[in-house]
Amino acid sequence: MSKEITPRAEDYSQWYIDLVRKAGLADYSAVKGCMVIKPYGFGIWENMRDQLDRMFKATGHVNAYFPLLIPKSFLSKEAAHIEGFAKECAVVTHYRLKNSADGTGLIVDPDAKLEEELIIRPTSETIIWSTYKEWIQSYRDLPLLINQWANVVRWEMRTRLFLRTTEFLWQEGHTAHATREEAIQETRTMLDVYATFAEEWMALPVIKGVKTANERFPGAEDTYTIEALMQDGKALQAGTSHFLGQSFAKAFNVQFTTKEGTSEYVWASSWGVSTRLMGALVMAHSDDEGLIIPPRLATTQVVIIPIPKPLPELTEVADRIASELRAKGIRVKIDNDDQNRPGFKFAEYEKLGIPIRLGIGARDLANGTIEVARRDTREKFSTPVDGIADCISALLEEIQQNMLARARAFRDEHITRVDTWEEFVNVLDTKFGFVSAHWDGTSETEDLIKEETKATIRCIPLNNPQEVGTCIKTGKPSTQRVLFARAY
Amino acid sequence: MSKEITPRAEDYSQWYIDLVRKAGLADYSAVKGCMVIKPYGFGIWENMRDQLDRMFKATGHVNAYFPLLIPKSFLSKEAAHIEGFAKECAVVTHYRLKNSADGTGLIVDPDAKLEEELIIRPTSETIIWSTYKEWIQSYRDLPLLINQWANVVRWEMRTRLFLRTTEFLWQEGHTAHATREEAIQETRTMLDVYATFAEEWMALPVIKGVKTANERFPGAEDTYTIEALMQDGKALQAGTSHFLGQSFAKAFNVQFTTKEGTSEYVWASSWGVSTRLMGALVMAHSDDEGLIIPPRLATTQVVIIPIPKPLPELTEVADRIASELRAKGIRVKIDNDDQNRPGFKFAEYEKLGIPIRLGIGARDLANGTIEVARRDTREKFSTPVDGIADCISALLEEIQQNMLARARAFRDEHITRVDTWEEFVNVLDTKFGFVSAHWDGTSETEDLIKEETKATIRCIPLNNPQEVGTCIKTGKPSTQRVLFARAY
Repeated sequence: MSKEITPRAEDYSQWYIDLVRKAGLADYSAVKGCMVIKPYGFGIWENMRDQLDRMFKATGHVNAYFPLLIPKSFLSKEAAHIEGFAKECAVVTHYRLKNSADGTGLIVDPDAKLEEELIIRPTSETIIWSTYKEWIQSYRDLPLLINQWANVVRWEMRTRLFLRTTEFLWQEGHTAHATREEAIQETRTMLDVYATFAEEWMALPVIKGVKTANERFPGAEDTYTIEALMQDGKALQAGTSHFLGQSFAKAFNVQFTTKEGTSEYVWASSWGVSTRLMGALVMAHSDDEGLIIPPRLATTQVVIIPIPKPLPELTEVADRIASELRAKGIRVKIDNDDQNRPGFKFAEYEKLGIPIRLGIGARDLANGTIEVARRDTREKFSTPVDGIADCISALLEEIQQNMLARARAFRDEHITRVDTWEEFVNVLDTKFGFVSAHWDGTSETEDLIKEETKATIRCIPLNNPQEVGTCIKTGKPSTQRVLFARAY
Repeated sequence: MSKEITPRAEDYSQWYIDLVRKAGLADYSAVKGCMVIKPYGFGIWENMRDQLDRMFKATGHVNAYFPLLIPKSFLSKEAAHIEGFAKECAVVTHYRLKNSADGTGLIVDPDAKLEEELIIRPTSETIIWSTYKEWIQSYRDLPLLINQWANVVRWEMRTRLFLRTTEFLWQEGHTAHATREEAIQETRTMLDVYATFAEEWMALPVIKGVKTANERFPGAEDTYTIEALMQDGKALQAGTSHFLGQSFAKAFNVQFTTKEGTSEYVWASSWGVSTRLMGALVMAHSDDEGLIIPPRLATTQVVIIPIPKPLPELTEVADRIASELRAKGIRVKIDNDDQNRPGFKFAEYEKLGIPIRLGIGARDLANGTIEVARRDTREKFSTPVDGIADCISALLEEIQQNMLARARAFRDEHITRVDTWEEFVNVLDTKFGFVSAHWDGTSETEDLIKEETKATIRCIPLNNPQEVGTCIKTGKPSTQRVLFARAY
């Protein structure tokens, strides 16, 4: 196994950080809590972003851009919203620096104090709804289906690369509708878009559900979520879609004239996924050798390595194969570096999680074959050079499907139904994963369970079967099971 | 002419603002100095961004992302740099809000004061070079060719949509090299990329040149620029590429081990274009009816309007034509709205600057023809429906070239050679545009000229002919003409 990377069994958390840093995805920055997304990591994020953007546009959305800075008073207009974000706001108070009187350096100029402090957006509902007030007058202006790709800041004391950082990148959709039903429909549609993206592109199976009141977005009537399971059995909230009711329309007085000429408040949704998905991608699939990137998101899908080194007769074949693969739209790299030996290169590309490695050696070539190594199963086999493009094309698809199937099998094995408190605690402590259990429906019980076990209700799954039962904690009557887990 | 839009002749500045707002490109926000980029404007910006991104990648660059927030001490490390930006820094001093003791609202929590203030990046040289120190050890780590798409904040007292706003979107390339020559080559390569993009995509002819010391980027040894001319005869700096020498490498102590085993400071470039290009696009091409968007950047290149309204037999033909155009990669919209009359729609799409409008009426159809209206010249003609896709495809290209030729002719007519101070002032005041004149090469004279005329030296053109002359202001000897203009 890779010497640089701590094995999962030894320290899962350190394994994750090692992977993210050593594979060149991201690193800590000089600014506390903020990360640098390195070129390799950013390339994968670009692939995620571009595909999500296509899916948003295919569902009728357009992009726009709203200010980074939000007046403090705006943030305060929706009570639950500010309650949720006040404690993590980065506050801009001044707009100028100047040299200190004693000549020792640069200070904040006290004469350049803002009349009203500005908050760096932790999310943009308030600045966007203050703008929608200008844009929406009549039912003809609705629906308004807008998305924004942006950076946001939520001050964090304890951070972890991608999973929890003070600044992160995300997209936030903000839509406005004439009816409650239509806004709920939008909320659900975007949840489906997220789930499809997670499964088909990230090879990450997710459970769609709705959050309890405790875990709801501040200002939302309902928060829908997709929940994924990591290899250590902890859950990760991978995306959320909020039905906001009329709370922001009321806070910013956004009304529209209906077809009938009456005046009504607008209905809203908002939804977002972030660079946190990068963390989910790493933790769901990788192993002790390094990353395993699903082919659809890999910036390089196939690497070709001449063995033992880039001799002219080998690179000529490598070039030809690369051309054939590229003609099929496959992203290929040839490693013509002559400083490092094949063994070193193999380990490097395993660390980077490149889905397929092709080894080209003189002996293989004499036989008209080439060695294929797939990253997901680490299997190797020989295959004829003739028809290589079709073979690789099919194999990339097989790897994509295999990664999803493997993650789904692991996830399904880690949904455990329990009916007693003892079982509940035991599963959380020893088997990990999701625990499906009855709950009496109160926030108090949820808080109590969280306090005692650190487990939270990840979601009430959509189309959840109704069944008579008793709460595992209080013994009170319950009508359905919900999914508990410890979570990132 | 459009009633919503102030004519250029009446008030050029108001014409610009009217266009930007009424055509839905951008608008002022509730936050002083910050703009909202509206969906139509953002769509055009996406087209610009995507093409620039392709050109950066084709020249070997990769994207990454660095923190929004920069410690105050970092910004201070390069003396000229901080001198240039200190007066426009947005400063984060606190990281939390709390309820006031008297219950009247939310205040900045005095207990959450940062030990060191953070600056919202006005540009990222300092945070990036503090990171490059970790990434660069050996000549094998060079060159480092990285670009970032990001938002930046430079506090502005007087703002104008796209042209000058407190927050704007841009890309900033930051490269590191082993030699001075290679860094200069990179600086020049990226200037060429910008010039090619401006001319081929924006239909905007530019003059490539180098800035004088007065107009140089703070911290650069040389600043290269592309300068464009707007319809009112004012110049606009459309992009800059800086040769930074070793100033940031020295400020952040970034050294590398050469092949020979010695230790040397790294050489640097940085280069950027911003949403300011949107302003240039509007001001270079549009007229009193509205925007004129070059076909390569238009989000909708062709709009099809059934006349007098979307009757079934007309929309059927419209659909068929749209399919044919889309098969050629043309971006088409059919306007099937049945509320507004054709005349209203024509005016709307002229305002939006859609390059080609197709009118489909029953009488035309009987003749097997369709009416084509091009936005750039406002000419109309009939053409057979058969073969319409080839016709439109060629016309889009013709429009793109015509817009460039027209802007180039205007620009060339507005470069005036003068040899006396009287002529100089007269041209600036009456003919406008660039003035090519001798200058004695000193910052003092440049300052004096700026003070008296508001004209600055836009650039010393690349490959500038050397000729003996005397400075128009001081009469001192000069070896070359430089380009003066009033500028945005």
